[in-house]
Formats: sequence, structure tokens, C-alpha cells
Amino acid sequence: DGHANDPPLLYAHALLGLASIKTNNVNVSSKIYMDYNATTPMEPEVIQVITEALHEAWGNPSSNYIAGAMAKAIISRSRQNVARMVGGKAEDIIFTSGGTEANNLVLHTAVEHFRKSRSAAEHGEGLQNGCSGLPHIITSNVEHDSIRLTAKHLQSVGKADVTCVPVSKVNARVDVEDIIAAVRPNTCLISVMMANNETGVIMPIQEICQRVKSLNKQHDRLRILLHTDAAQALGKIPVDVQELGVDFLTIVGHKFYAPRAGALYVNGPGTKTPLYPMIFGGGQERNFRPGTENTPMIAGLGKAAELVTANLSRYQSHMLNIRVYLEERLQAVFRDRIRFNSHYPGSDILPNTCNVSILGPALQGWRVLANCRRLLASVGAACHSSSGHRPSHILLSCGVPTEVAANALRLSVGRGTTKEDVDLVVEDLRETVQLLEKMN
Amino acid sequence: DGHANDPPLLYAHALLGLASIKTNNVNVSSKIYMDYNATTPMEPEVIQVITEALHEAWGNPSSNYIAGAMAKAIISRSRQNVARMVGGKAEDIIFTSGGTEANNLVLHTAVEHFRKSRSAAEHGEGLQNGCSGLPHIITSNVEHDSIRLTAKHLQSVGKADVTCVPVSKVNARVDVEDIIAAVRPNTCLISVMMANNETGVIMPIQEICQRVKSLNKQHDRLRILLHTDAAQALGKIPVDVQELGVDFLTIVGHKFYAPRAGALYVNGPGTKTPLYPMIFGGGQERNFRPGTENTPMIAGLGKAAELVTANLSRYQSHMLNIRVYLEERLQAVFRDRIRFNSHYPGSDILPNTCNVSILGPALQGWRVLANCRRLLASVGAACHSSSGHRPSHILLSCGVPTEVAANALRLSVGRGTTKEDVDLVVEDLRETVQLLEKMN
Repeated sequence: DGHANDPPLLYAHALLGLASIKTNNVNVSSKIYMDYNATTPMEPEVIQVITEALHEAWGNPSSNYIAGAMAKAIISRSRQNVARMVGGKAEDIIFTSGGTEANNLVLHTAVEHFRKSRSAAEHGEGLQNGCSGLPHIITSNVEHDSIRLTAKHLQSVGKADVTCVPVSKVNARVDVEDIIAAVRPNTCLISVMMANNETGVIMPIQEICQRVKSLNKQHDRLRILLHTDAAQALGKIPVDVQELGVDFLTIVGHKFYAPRAGALYVNGPGTKTPLYPMIFGGGQERNFRPGTENTPMIAGLGKAAELVTANLSRYQSHMLNIRVYLEERLQAVFRDRIRFNSHYPGSDILPNTCNVSILGPALQGWRVLANCRRLLASVGAACHSSSGHRPSHILLSCGVPTEVAANALRLSVGRGTTKEDVDLVVEDLRETVQLLEKMN
Repeated sequence: DGHANDPPLLYAHALLGLASIKTNNVNVSSKIYMDYNATTPMEPEVIQVITEALHEAWGNPSSNYIAGAMAKAIISRSRQNVARMVGGKAEDIIFTSGGTEANNLVLHTAVEHFRKSRSAAEHGEGLQNGCSGLPHIITSNVEHDSIRLTAKHLQSVGKADVTCVPVSKVNARVDVEDIIAAVRPNTCLISVMMANNETGVIMPIQEICQRVKSLNKQHDRLRILLHTDAAQALGKIPVDVQELGVDFLTIVGHKFYAPRAGALYVNGPGTKTPLYPMIFGGGQERNFRPGTENTPMIAGLGKAAELVTANLSRYQSHMLNIRVYLEERLQAVFRDRIRFNSHYPGSDILPNTCNVSILGPALQGWRVLANCRRLLASVGAACHSSSGHRPSHILLSCGVPTEVAANALRLSVGRGTTKEDVDLVVEDLRETVQLLEKMN
């Protein structure tokens, strides 16, 4: 496998080498990162454009002279590249500080849109139906906290009603019929993630959009806005806003080898699709998201998007090969003691995500990871790392039994992960399991 | 002057060299940047820590393993350095995407705080007075758009009443008595910038805070929160939250040779001082501002803060020397045709800001700048660069006559600006004025 020297892994090794030195670990390059769903290193080309921009494009993009124009040109190019990655137009891309802000902006917009529609109806304009009471938002019960907690907050302060449609305990997906059945006259937004961060399960976004578009054609129906958080999908599987049929799509740089910057795709912001800013200021991003632009981060986001557009099928097939090999090796070593929490009948999953439990009373996920010598992975979303040793609510929602969920390891591979890495990780897990069972 | 080779200027020249090449200008290093109030280049040490973090600290700060811990440690160190720069504690610093977001967060918090106080009063707890009707916010008429337009928005949607206290047309400052006179029972926030971005005039924040603290001691008085946007003050004059007595202070990296990142100082967020998040998500920044942390940008912000703490008096005296020299040279060359829009009786100004008009019918600021061969400066805030050729509303508010304001040039010098730069700029202006008058 020619990926042994792939640069992202090199950086991982550089980092982890450093880390190891600090912990007095002699074997400085012994760690193997398999937590690419938590965050990714940046591609060398991405770091390069960021570094160039740090040195050369520090001018204020709003300044009229050439230094401003240069920064503006970089941002404009980046916007084109990000748009191209998702199949949208440059003017459909609003840069944000990250995915959390983008997701919040969508929920904020839905509530504002409802408010304005109601206000218009009260003044005898626009729709007469569907605008009394609270706006209603439909989402799933396996969303990222930036959707889940934002919706919960809106509900708790009396600004919205929220329905969290549970995913099927058989196939870990939201059922399109369940989504449609949850629609009320006041429903103003459906927000379902494109792929789950823990199971890797891909949700039926296209089907949801098709069904909802029929609903939206009904006379006097309040328009239901359609959003998907594509944080985990981008750079791993094809993502095309036209095919999906979404109004909004969340883009998170640090999941596809870009820096910590994000964007929101909006199908014609302010024209075809409403978009209401959460913050106000100096007019940047056409007033949808003011604040002096972070040129270097935006430059990096654009470069990473360009790489995804150019190389997606290669990335995808490499990650799939490696993940399948990982599953095979785990199966071969642990045999009937292994459960894959990312395998569900009829559900497609991300090419890079392997959520696995090794059965046994002493083999809780956190315990296994704490004792592994090489493997760096997580038991679930990084944001939940402080939530103690409770089994993942995501896995429980997907029908994984508690004792299996408690042992879950989320192994997510990257562009540079090799079969040699897999062999070392599986061996590491074998030794760790042996050790823990001896201690028990 | 030993600053001729100061690195920020070197970067400016690198940038502008590049820019010049692209515009086929033969004299590649001929441009002189005097728009440091719009944005600054980053210090080489700042770029270095950012670059290191890009390579080595890409781990998710929430991850439990060492890669996460390293990123977390960098963020923690940066928080200490930012806190030290303003005289606060590390736990008082909330990182944001920039100053615009920080300013919005303060106004949002004030309105939420009012709402919660009223709700508590309605339930027989807390204050019985001062909580009916709308929350009232006091600000000045020369604030940055991220305060001005946010306040205006809150007013337009019926969420707050806003009083914009006009600055004195004599000394360009808000009068403390005018602020106090504007206080109502419902007043929940006073937000006044520390120094104006166009005139450089320093506002009487300490005096306002002292007076308001007496008011706040009144029984049953709704607490008035105190905020200053210190975007233009940091790195130029001493800024100490204890001395000032503010509850909130806005920190904007790219005005003090840091990257496009910001922070909000809050005196005991959630304990001594209320703080209500605008966005919700994975729990970062103690839930006050979730979203995976932008480690490299935060690292750069911390390094730049460290440099300010260590070198402020040197930066300040250098900029003052250069600005005074600039004013002398302008005076010597243009004599009675010069008006300084940054000179007001009894008002202190930033050491680096020279707002100047050269009188004459053909010498509008935009026209002069468009014809200068070397000088890169602006006629006012960069955010207003698209607002056409209208005279600055800030200068008009400060009592500058329309025909003088129309000719204004905001020249803001930096740590690396030299007397040679000044000589070249003044000569450039002299030639430009000559040219424009000949053409007229």
C-alpha cells in the first residue's frame, strides 16, 4: 500500500511523536490515529495556502486598495471552490466560523421565517394558513449537539415546537414516512444529518426532500425548509445539493482536511431561500454573516474543497478498502466476540467508519482505549468526551443493546491510513483485551 | 529610526510588492501602508505559533488522548495571555470568531438578562422595579456597526429601546453626564467604545463605570451592565478591566497584529456577570460559545496578546513619535490648508491615528487616495468602503464641517512605520494635491 508516507499521516506522526516525547514514551512514532470523524489534520497544500495568506493576504478584504482586493480575490476563489464541492453556485455559500454556527443559523432562520410569514398573514398578505402558534421543527434523535441542543433551547424558551423523530432500531436511519407523519401545518424546517458521526449511517435526505417538495406544492402551505448537516459526509461520499434537493447544507472544514472554518450552503440566500442573520455588523458576507473575514482560514477551506472535488473517488475507495480490511481483521481475531455497531440491514454507511464492540464484562470502550498502546480513537462524538462512561445515546437509539454499546469503539480511518496501521491497531486491541481480561 | 526593518512592515512590503507586480507597477516596494486601524499584519512570532499549531496541534481539543490534550493546553495558555493583556482572569475570557460576534453577544446577553430578571420579578423573586416594558440600551452615535446595527436591529424588531447618546461636537467624546441623563429604570446595558476608529478619540469609560456603579447600588435597581469595545485601544494604549470597571470588554485580534480571532472579556461569566450564549452545541467555551475551537487562530491571538503585555509602552511611544512627526510634516507642507479631524480640545487620542483633511474643492478623501502613488489609507472604517463618497457620519457627528469631512484621510500608523515612510507619504500627498489642483 503506497499510502504509508501520505502527508496527513506524517503530520499525525509528527504530532503524536511530539506528544509521545512529552509522555516519556520511547517509541515516539507508535501511535496510530483512527479518529478522523472527530477531526482531521490539514493537507499540506491546505497548510500552504493558509501560510501564504497569513503572510501575504492580511489586508482587510473591505479595503479599497490592492491589499484589500487581493484578500477579496482569495475569498472569492475559495467561495467558488466550496460551491463546486457541493454542486452549488458561489453566491450560495456563506462562510461561518464553523459547523456549529452554520447549524444554529439554519434553525434561527426557520424561526424567523415563520415569524415573518405569520406577520405577513396577519396583515392580510401571504399565507393565511399554517402560521398560528409556534413554528415546528422536525429533526432526528441522532443529530449533532449543534442541532439537538439548539432545537431543545428553542423549545425550552417557547420559541419553537420540536419533534425528534427516532431512527429505526433496525436500520439506524430515520424513516421517510416517520418524517412525513410528523409534519404539522406549522412545520417550517426539517433538519436531518446526512451521515451519522458515530455509526456512519447515511440518511435518506434525497427521499425526504422529494416527499417534502410535494407537500410544499400544496396551496397555502407554509414552506417547509430542508436542511442537512453534511459535516461527516463531505470528503467521504458524493454530496450534491441539486441531487439532494436541500435548501441548506452545513459544511465543516475540519472534517475534510481543511482548517476550523465552515460554511452554509443556501439555495439562493435571501432570494429563493430565506436567510436571517444572527449577528449584525460591517456588511461582510452580504450582511448574512458580518465580521472581518478570516482570509487564511477561508483560503484553506477553499483549497481543501478543491482537493475533495478533484479526488473524492480516490479518497472514498481508499477509505473503504481500509475499513473493510479493518473489519475483516477484527472479525478474524475476535470472531464471535465482535459486534459491528455500524452494520445495519439495508443501510449504507460512510466508507471510513467502523463502530465496533468487543464483547466482555471488562471491555468497556473507554477502558480498552485507555489501555491501548497505539490506537487513538474515541467511544463517540468528541464533544461528549466529558460525559463520563455512559454508553452512547446514539447507539442506544439505533437499537444497540446497553452492554454492547458500553463496549463501543468508534474507529474512523483517513486518507492516509494504511493496512499496516490496521494490522498494528488490531494487534494492539488483541493485546489490550488479553491484558484487561487477565486483570479482571 | 531603527524600525525600518521591522518585520510587520516587511510583510506589508512583501504583500504590496506582490500586489504591485500584479498591477505591473515597476517600483515593487513603493507602497506605504497607513491603515493599521483597518487591520494589521501579523507579527512573525504570531505567524510562527499559528503555523506550528496548523502542523502539530490539529487534534480535537475535546478528544481524550494526547493530541486533544495538546490542543487544549495551547488554548489554555492563550486564554491566560489574553486575560493578562487586559488585566483579567483566564476564566473571564470567552473566545469568539471576532469582535463582531463578541459585540453581538453582549447586546444579546443584555436583552436576555432583562428578560430573565423580568420573568423572575413576575414570579415574585428578585427585583420588582425596572423590569416592565422593553430593555433599554445606551450607546453612543459613533460606535462600530457591530454595535450600532445590532442595537438598531433589536429596536426595529421590538426587542429593545435604544438611546444613541451623541458625542460632543466640541471634544468628540460622549459626555458622562449625557450618559447618566439617558438612564431609565429599564436600562440594562451601556456600551461605549474605548477609542473611536476614525478620530482615535478615547472615551471616558472609567468615569462612566464609576457613575453607573453608584446607580447600580440603588435598592431594587435593575443592574446596568457595562461594556466597552476595545478593538482600537488594545496594543495602542493601556487597557485594564479592573481600572476601567467594565463588565464586558471586546477584544479583536486583527487590530493588534493577531489573526482574525476575537474574545470577550466577561467579569465572572455566568457568576458575577450574566452571559447568555447565542449559539448552542458541543459544550466548548463552557457552553458560552460552542463549536470546535480554532486552535491555530487562538494560539496566534494568545501570542499577540503576550507581545502587547510585554511591549506596549514601546509600541505606544513609537507610534506616538511617528504620528506626531507625520502631523508636523503635514503642517509644514500644507500649512493653513490642513485640518486635523483627530484634534479636539481636552480629548486624548490613540497614539497612531491621524485623521486629516487637506482643504480644497478637488481634494475629497477618496479622490486623493485614488491618486496617491504610495499611500495606502482609507477615508474611514473599512466596513464603510462601499458606502460611496459620502463624508463620514462619524466625523460629522464630531462637529467636523461637511466640506472638511469630505476631504478626510484616516492615516493610522503601525509598529513598523518609519519617519522615512512619513516623508515619502507626505511627499506623495503633496504631489497628488498638486496634480489634482492642476486637473481641476
